[in-house]
Amino acid sequence: MFLKPRMGSGSLPGAVRLNTPSQSHFLRPDARASPPKPGESSNSAIPVRQILHLIDHLVYKQKMSSTDAPTPGRRRGRPRKPPGDQTARQELIRTGLEYLTERGYCAVAVDEILRAAGVPKGSFYYHFDSKEDFGGALIGAYNEFFSSKLRTWFQRADLSPLDRLRGFISDAEKGMEKHAFRRGCLVGNLGQEMAALPPGFRSLLSSALSDWQHLTEACLLEAQNQGEIGKHHKPDALAAFFWIGWEGAVLRAKLEQSPDPLRQFAAGFFALTSN
Amino acid sequence: MFLKPRMGSGSLPGAVRLNTPSQSHFLRPDARASPPKPGESSNSAIPVRQILHLIDHLVYKQKMSSTDAPTPGRRRGRPRKPPGDQTARQELIRTGLEYLTERGYCAVAVDEILRAAGVPKGSFYYHFDSKEDFGGALIGAYNEFFSSKLRTWFQRADLSPLDRLRGFISDAEKGMEKHAFRRGCLVGNLGQEMAALPPGFRSLLSSALSDWQHLTEACLLEAQNQGEIGKHHKPDALAAFFWIGWEGAVLRAKLEQSPDPLRQFAAGFFALTSN
Repeated sequence: MFLKPRMGSGSLPGAVRLNTPSQSHFLRPDARASPPKPGESSNSAIPVRQILHLIDHLVYKQKMSSTDAPTPGRRRGRPRKPPGDQTARQELIRTGLEYLTERGYCAVAVDEILRAAGVPKGSFYYHFDSKEDFGGALIGAYNEFFSSKLRTWFQRADLSPLDRLRGFISDAEKGMEKHAFRRGCLVGNLGQEMAALPPGFRSLLSSALSDWQHLTEACLLEAQNQGEIGKHHKPDALAAFFWIGWEGAVLRAKLEQSPDPLRQFAAGFFALTSN
Repeated sequence: MFLKPRMGSGSLPGAVRLNTPSQSHFLRPDARASPPKPGESSNSAIPVRQILHLIDHLVYKQKMSSTDAPTPGRRRGRPRKPPGDQTARQELIRTGLEYLTERGYCAVAVDEILRAAGVPKGSFYYHFDSKEDFGGALIGAYNEFFSSKLRTWFQRADLSPLDRLRGFISDAEKGMEKHAFRRGCLVGNLGQEMAALPPGFRSLLSSALSDWQHLTEACLLEAQNQGEIGKHHKPDALAAFFWIGWEGAVLRAKLEQSPDPLRQFAAGFFALTSN
């Protein structure tokens, strides 16, 4: 769609020039954002719910430490299953990812996730100290899931390297379509909200994108070695370009409720690699 | 940065194929999102503040209708200045844009904006029926501001068409740097939050992007007519590609607190136009 039959070539005079970075910027886990000011909270209503949470949490922790800690006189046997077992944790992560890929971090309350997951509050606080702690775990789980998806595609020996990337793109499109384009990328959603998020999220989000970018770079390098991409291209710069634009395409697909932005971005990207 | 000295060319075998859209997708103002369910509210705390708002609003409206409505026996003279004059409206819009470009819609409470703008609540409800009404006005004001900025750059007769686009990019970079990369694009922020927003916002956001895209398309067409871009390119597809990726670049610049993503995306885009 980007390339009509070639009829001429363009020149690039440039009165206004942009500096290009001399090195990759994806490995900077510093968090320069200042913590939110007290008056800037998004919920300045009477914090009854938060107080109840805190009391619930403290009572629960107290109870756990007094009943579950090993004591000299305690009888032998299989230890009691903690109320927050791993199944509950997995369910919280699964439901959390579902909600946050759809609506982001700020618009989702922990209570909603508990209700949807059918997990009691005590179980939540057994596994996570706070919403922030939970959010961090969600970013980690999402990165793991997504890196694994990319690895699976990029290891497909039956496809050429560029077709592996096309396969991932088609897969992502199907994934968005399945959920009627309501769910986007957790990292993109949270990246957009960064100014309202706990500062510690910045390096987690940045690391996730850096991981995906490195996996993509390796795929593009293989494409270059196999002659699918010209030797004049730099796989690291192409991979950076891909992930910068891809997050924009996912955002736009959510907004338009259509796969077109994903396809339009992919078409432009492959036109770039083919020159 | 994308083009090293040319040493070979790539081929594009394709086992996995992507469909490309046959027509532009940017003019679909339909909003298929269903309204939020009652149980899905992001704030299920005791809604004392909301009740106070409502009472305040009703009392204010009642007062306005009983004192400001023209009555037969009312004495002549200059009408009383309404409490919500245009200066207050402008201040609300200015402060609202500041807050929402930084943190999005969901994370910002109207009360914060009122405090920061130094505008009383009555004045807010004189101009806007609700946060949703205010949000819609903000999208409109932002589109107006941004379209005007694009027009100013694209009308620069002293620059070549592609340099006009470079000028806009440099300008945007300076704008983000000025606010330490805390503020992004209002349309990108809200687009990312779409699933948590009033459904009516979808067409407003989509229209804004469509406006910017058409202005950019005209600039790229001029670039093509002046020989800066090859005749084989389609300016409408390039403009769509630019705005899909640019929103991703702004998102990433916010996350990385760096201008590099903007520059990397621009470098890739201009490499694409030069082939």
